[in-house]
Parts: sequence; C-alpha cells; structure tokens
Amino acid sequence: MAEYLRNAWYMFGWEQDIGQELVSKTILGRQVLVMRSSDGSLSAMDDRCPHRFAPLSMGRRQGDTIACRYHGLVFDSSGQCVHNPFSDLIPPGCKVTTYPLEVKHRGVWLWMGDAEAADPGFIPDFSFLDEPGHLLSTFHIGADYRLIIDNLMDLSHIEFLHTDSFGGGGSILHGELSVREEHPYIYALWEMDNIAPPPWATAMVEPGAKVDHWLDMRWSAPGSLLIEIGLTGAGAPREPGIIPPLLGAHILTPETDTSSHYFYSTAPAAQSPVDPDAPKGVSALEDEDKPMLEAIQRAMGDAEFWSLRPAILSVDTGSVRVRRRLAKMISDEQKATFETA
Amino acid sequence: MAEYLRNAWYMFGWEQDIGQELVSKTILGRQVLVMRSSDGSLSAMDDRCPHRFAPLSMGRRQGDTIACRYHGLVFDSSGQCVHNPFSDLIPPGCKVTTYPLEVKHRGVWLWMGDAEAADPGFIPDFSFLDEPGHLLSTFHIGADYRLIIDNLMDLSHIEFLHTDSFGGGGSILHGELSVREEHPYIYALWEMDNIAPPPWATAMVEPGAKVDHWLDMRWSAPGSLLIEIGLTGAGAPREPGIIPPLLGAHILTPETDTSSHYFYSTAPAAQSPVDPDAPKGVSALEDEDKPMLEAIQRAMGDAEFWSLRPAILSVDTGSVRVRRRLAKMISDEQKATFETA
Amino acid sequence: MAEYLRNAWYMFGWEQDIGQELVSKTILGRQVLVMRSSDGSLSAMDDRCPHRFAPLSMGRRQGDTIACRYHGLVFDSSGQCVHNPFSDLIPPGCKVTTYPLEVKHRGVWLWMGDAEAADPGFIPDFSFLDEPGHLLSTFHIGADYRLIIDNLMDLSHIEFLHTDSFGGGGSILHGELSVREEHPYIYALWEMDNIAPPPWATAMVEPGAKVDHWLDMRWSAPGSLLIEIGLTGAGAPREPGIIPPLLGAHILTPETDTSSHYFYSTAPAAQSPVDPDAPKGVSALEDEDKPMLEAIQRAMGDAEFWSLRPAILSVDTGSVRVRRRLAKMISDEQKATFETA
Repeated sequence: MAEYLRNAWYMFGWEQDIGQELVSKTILGRQVLVMRSSDGSLSAMDDRCPHRFAPLSMGRRQGDTIACRYHGLVFDSSGQCVHNPFSDLIPPGCKVTTYPLEVKHRGVWLWMGDAEAADPGFIPDFSFLDEPGHLLSTFHIGADYRLIIDNLMDLSHIEFLHTDSFGGGGSILHGELSVREEHPYIYALWEMDNIAPPPWATAMVEPGAKVDHWLDMRWSAPGSLLIEIGLTGAGAPREPGIIPPLLGAHILTPETDTSSHYFYSTAPAAQSPVDPDAPKGVSALEDEDKPMLEAIQRAMGDAEFWSLRPAILSVDTGSVRVRRRLAKMISDEQKATFETA
Repeated sequence: MAEYLRNAWYMFGWEQDIGQELVSKTILGRQVLVMRSSDGSLSAMDDRCPHRFAPLSMGRRQGDTIACRYHGLVFDSSGQCVHNPFSDLIPPGCKVTTYPLEVKHRGVWLWMGDAEAADPGFIPDFSFLDEPGHLLSTFHIGADYRLIIDNLMDLSHIEFLHTDSFGGGGSILHGELSVREEHPYIYALWEMDNIAPPPWATAMVEPGAKVDHWLDMRWSAPGSLLIEIGLTGAGAPREPGIIPPLLGAHILTPETDTSSHYFYSTAPAAQSPVDPDAPKGVSALEDEDKPMLEAIQRAMGDAEFWSLRPAILSVDTGSVRVRRRLAKMISDEQKATFETA
Repeated sequence: MAEYLRNAWYMFGWEQDIGQELVSKTILGRQVLVMRSSDGSLSAMDDRCPHRFAPLSMGRRQGDTIACRYHGLVFDSSGQCVHNPFSDLIPPGCKVTTYPLEVKHRGVWLWMGDAEAADPGFIPDFSFLDEPGHLLSTFHIGADYRLIIDNLMDLSHIEFLHTDSFGGGGSILHGELSVREEHPYIYALWEMDNIAPPPWATAMVEPGAKVDHWLDMRWSAPGSLLIEIGLTGAGAPREPGIIPPLLGAHILTPETDTSSHYFYSTAPAAQSPVDPDAPKGVSALEDEDKPMLEAIQRAMGDAEFWSLRPAILSVDTGSVRVRRRLAKMISDEQKATFETA
C-alpha cells in the first residue's frame, strides 16, 4: 500500500463536471462523494453511511441533504446526521467524515489530511484556466501517479513514444534540459534553440526557417503540473512568438496504488483545426502514453521503484528531483505525525 | 478468512433441485458434492478425489457410486474407495471426507463440524414448508451472510430500500420493534397497529379502514430465518386476519467470506396474481437488496464489521443481538476445540 | 511462490515460430524477450528496459538492436546499451539481464540460472525431431507444470479421461507399469502384452488378432518428456512392428506458479488421416487434459501438493519418483547457492 502525502490538495475533478447528481470517485483508495448544494457550493465526504456502510451515492437527495437509501438516515453537507426516521435522537458519532474542498481555477480540490492545515493558498496556481476557451478533460491511467509524473518531467520521450501523434523529427534531441527549483515548484525546462520546426509547426514557418522552441514543465506536490509550449523565430524574443505560448494543466490524483485520475486542459489555440496532440489521428495520451505507462506498471508489479535499480540518464534530472522531494515530504509528514501522536 | 460456526446445520439446497445429476457447490469455502442414491437418499462429500484432487463432480455415476474421471477410482456414498482399477488393494486412507446430511422440511442440510455432534433435532423448524404450495427459490448475493441477516433482522429498510417494489408509504415508521429471545431463537417483531394499510394491501380493505400489520422475524444460528407477515383489521385478533399470515423461509449459507447462497420460499397466497415482492415489476431481492448488500460488501472491503465502528440505531437491536450471539457461539466453539485438542 | 530449478534448460518455444518479430513470454514468472538477429541467431533477455522498465518488446528493431520505445535507449543482443540519444555516455549498469539460449532439436532452450553452468550438453535428447515431418505445436494449461508431469508419467488416465478421444477400451488395464532410472532420465514404461488392439488400432489388425502395445515415457528435469507409442503383433519383436514406434515430445515450461507452456510434437505417421489424439473429433489435450488439470489446480488452490496428503496408487510410481527427484534437485541447488553465498 502506497503512502500518500496527506496534507496536500488533490484534484477531485473539474467543477464543470459536477451538476446536481452526486459524484463518487475513489481518491487515494477511499470512496469519496462530492455533492452540490442549492447555493452552488460543493462539499466532500466519505461515500459510506456510518450506520451500515451503504454508499451514500445510492441515496436520495432531499434539498441539500442526502437520505441514505438503506435506512433513511439523513445527512447534511457537513456530514452530520440531521434526521433519524426511528427516533428523535441522532445517535452520537453518527457523522460522515468530510474533507475540506475548494473550487479554484475551475478545479475541485480536496484535502485528505489534517483539516486544520488545509490552506487554500497551497492550491497551485492554474489561474490561466480562468481565461475563456480552455477545454477541460478527464482521463484514467492504470499506473501509479509517480510514473505519470516521470513521463511529464522528462519530455524526451516525445521523440520516441509520440511518433504516431505529434512527436518525432528530432527537435527534442537538439535541446537542453535544465531543472530549477523555486519553492514550492520544481521546473523542468526543455529549450531547443535554432532548430528546424517540430513536425506540428512546419506549416507555420517559411520553408528552411529556424525556430526557438521550448517546453517548460512546472511541478508542485503531489501531482500538479503545468506545461508551457512555446515557439518563436530563432533568436527572437519569446513573446509574441510565432504562436502565443500554449499553457496546459496536467493534474494527477492517485485513485489506487496502481491507477490514477488524469485531469488536463487543452489551450484554445490548440483545439483547432485538429487536436494538436493528435495531428495524425492518433491520441498521444490515449494511444501512446496510456499503453506504455500501463505496461510499465505491469512490468513493475508490486515492486518499489528504487528497488528495481533504474538506470539514470541526464534527462531524468527533473523526474528524479521530484521523486526525491515527494518522498521526503511524505517521510517528514509521517515523522511529524508520529511525534505529535 | 472468516471463522464459521462448525457445529451447525447449513442448508445446501432445496431437496427438489437435486435429481440424478451430481450437484457441486462451494459451502463455507469448501467444494462440496451432493449425490442422490437409487434409494432416493442423499449424501455429501468433498468434491475432490483423494488421489490427485480431481473434482468428483466431473466423474461418472456407476449405480450408487462415482468413478473418478481421472484415474477411475470408485467411491461409494460413504466416501469410501470401493474399487481401484489397478489393484485389488484399496490404498489406505483412500476415503473422501463426508458430511452428515439431513433432508428436512424440503431442505437439504449439511453439518460441517464434528459428525458425532450432528443431531437432526438441531435443524430449525420450517415445518410450514411441508404444507403444499410453497414456491422454493435459490439466489446468490455477493456479500457476507451476516450482512444479509442484518438486513432481515432490521426490516425498517423496507421503507427506504424497497420503494420500487412493495415498500414505502410509511407503515414501517408507525411500528414498534421488540426483540425477544427464546432459545434457540431470537425474534425481531415489528408491530404496526392501527395504520393505513401498506401499499400492497390497499385493495384488500375498505377505503379509509385501518389495519394491524406485523412482520415477525425468527432467527436461528447460523443463518436460518423465518418471517411471518400478518394483516388484520385494526384491533381484531391476528387470526383469521384479512389475509392468513404469510410464512416465508430466508435461509443463508456462506459460500465464501464475501458471498452467500440465499434460499427462500414464497407462500401460496403470495404467488398470484403477481409476485408480492414485486408488485411494480421490480424484484425486492434481485433489484433492491442484492445491489445494496453487494455495494456494502465492496465498501467494507476486508474490514471486520465492528472495526468500522458502525453507528447503532434503535432498529438494530435484533441484528446486533444476533451478531453478538453468533460471535459468542463461534468463540465458544473454538475455545472448546482448543481445550479438547 | 514456487521454487524453480534454476540451473536447467527450459524450452521457450519452437524455433520455427520465431521470425523477425520480437517474441515475449512469461517464463518462470519473468517476462522474457527473444529476438532473432540478421545472422539468424537468437538471443534472450528480460523484456524490461533498465531505465524506466518499459517492455522492450514494445520497442523498434534497428538492425540487430532494439530501440526502447519510451526514451530511445538502444540495446544489442547481448543486452548491452549501445546508444544513449541524450549523451555520448552510456550510463553504468545500463544493461539488460540476458539468458543463455540454445537452439537444439528444433526447440529454443533457455537457462535461467547461473550462466557459467549453462552446458548445452544438458539439453535432453530430442534428436528424433530433426527427422522431417514432425508437427510442432504450442499449447497452454492453467496448472502447475508438475501436475502435467503427473499426468504424463501416469498414463493410466488414458483409460478414464480420454474416452471421448483415443482411450478407453481397457488396454491400459491389461498392462504392467515399470519405472526405471537411467541418469539423467526416469522412465515410466507401460507394457500391454497379448491384448486386443486399442480402439485407435483396431482397423490395423486382423479381426481377433492380439497385439503387444507399449507406452514408454521418458522424463528429464525439469519438464521434458518423450513418449514412444508402440504396437506389434503379440509376441513379435518391437521392430518393425505393426506401425513403427511413434515418438512424441511433451515439453513443459512453467509460466507462473499455476500455469504452464506446453510444447509438443506429433509424429508424421500420426498426422493422417485424422489427428490420432482425436479420432472422434475430440482433442485429448484441449478437451480432456486441459479442463481436468485446470480443475485440479483450482481444487488445490494455493496448497502445496503433499500437504493435501494424496492417496498413493501403484500407478503413481513414476510420477512420485519424478516429484521426489525434482524436489531434491531444487533443494540441493538452493543449499549450494546458500553455501556459496
């Protein structure tokens, strides 16, 4: 069983995807229910009645409360039992565990740790999503979230894995990777200067013209990543560029030890005429990343990553830095909990 | 792995459902075979040849014996190997474990514990089934048998779970639950006096007339329950009633730690014109109980029931009493085994 | 988890079935890749890149090397990383574990233990396969390989299990089993003298004529068996016989603890007019052995064979001798490893 960072914000889903229906998902191995109240606010609680453990998501909405479908106990959005059909007494302790929830930058964020420590200021900055036009998607990969972070912090794989979608052509190999830390972020910056344009951009420049191209990835714990994809004339300033920089969110939430929710955004300029991730009709995420990451998860089985003694390449600098940081955060948190207890 | 009560009768199936074919089922985690001999008698044994562990249910009937399909060893209904095709010698210890079996009240009952202690007098009284006309059914639920006992000992759920079949309407909420012990039975009696008739009975009484309605549930260890459903005019004696009391068997046998065989009967008067459990075309058992109980089993995972600290309501009196009793019987049995050993 | 004999040759597949495509199979619980180089030679290695554990079988062939599909590391047939797209340096330790591989008698054999000890002379003699005309097949059974060896070393089951294909009729019961050891082989010899011909051979002899019939099985560790099926006139010498002796390979390689690869050959004379294993349109292996062996595996669950205290018959002499020998070889090997370490 994986140890998760508890005192952190995990994305539950996109706010737009939560309507009047109760939404239940497995998050960090727990079944969690999110409901929207009539004032539009959202709340999160365990999807399990404290009486006989019926999923509350099978229950009935009654205004801003949920009546359990099994024996009719009614719970409000704070998880408190507010009605017992069999008595005027609410049994002591008849309360569902709730989780701090924040809606920010169009995402719904949950805090699975110590509620006192749940500071919305810790939600990473995805304010670019507040601009109109970003397409928000939800995806699922049968792999540990850290394998997906590895994938994103080391974009060199574009050259080899994404040859049927948007990659290949050698741009990546002409680049330099630098890794920078700026609390609470770790950046993996891939800069390709004075290169032939990448395949997806050839039509945008004069034949023979060279470009500067960059892929800037920003990670924050536990699994929130922001990419900036840029393209400008060789030697020209980044802005305005041949295209304005494309920003994309890639936000990962562990479902179980070996599966993850994957939430991402597609920038307006990248949505037409075709999905930029799939200029050849092949989806980079669906058809290339997902099968590879799931095959790796199967190959690893139950083994811990470092126990398999992975060979380390220069391009792993970012992903290794993130793995080390995350492991230290989890270890520090557990030590603190132990000392407090 | 659940600890089961060993010295007890478990129902294997309805006698009517066992013909000349060998019948094999998992009972308490063991694969058990029941065969009918030419004199009509039934016998039960492990469905596993002691030689190379071939399922005997794959074998061939030869009169009142079974020839193993793999190497032809022949076993009689006492489990004894009576023919070895390769020698006149029967190998010592070449015997299949058998189980005491009794046919009573149309059920086939097995004793999985100490054979010496297998007293048919301990089979609970379902003699009403010897009356003609009861419809006998077999069902399967992917949940621990004790979750199903909870369901039956606390019928308050009719009001909330069975709204699409026969329940709802509020009758249950006007009732009183009393729990009574009368060795070896525990009764949960739900009495609803002077109420509007339940939905399924409205056509049976004058508009506006009140009724007395009762649901008497009787449990005996490990999982044998008998329900009496009654309806009479408000204040009138129980007999003859508006309808004669309907008796129904609900008998549960653990298949595995998380699944159960469910055997039940439907009274003649309840069989027409439509299934009383499904006046609206929805089956209470199939469409309402089963999905709920299986969802609860999934929600509980491997956790022991009490370790999840369930909230306790007044309506749980019967089910909690049964859980405590059953746990004590199992614990006493294990202590006795330990002291004897 | 089963303990396997490590210092032994296991068959990976038939040489004819390995073309230019990479072939990946689970062998002894490990995912192993076999590739054919341009000079026709074969090599075997773990199907897992040492960098981020991507299956190399998802990679691209580049001449006699494989480029990992994830980050482009290139490996030659010795498992050595020979190209790192991101640096002139090959990371130390960037090497895939390889396995000694030999092609002999049309089979591809792997050595999963100490490479120094991999002597091709230990590959069992199946030189008859070098004669033209043998049909080579591959099959899969969801059972421990030792259960399949039991099946082959005790052919008495032909009489009872193979009644719908080629068996039954009683020939087997008129035979004598003798077991002989001749290092490194153990033989189980089934001789049926002066009997009516077996069902599949009745058309080959005069009505009423008697025959001598034999089934000679030869085992060598861990799971390589050779059968000779013979038929001659009663009292006549074995050669030339009514038919020349039919030789068949039955070679078993553990896939996992509860599943096996099954490689077998069919002699030319046995291929027409109909499959001799299926004169009645029923395949002995597919329709009779496989369901039985898989049912036995399910019946045994996780239990160790001897812990279930199997009854022992005279016909088990060969299979028990093999089980004991194999267990001793494994135990000796582990002791030796322990002393060396």
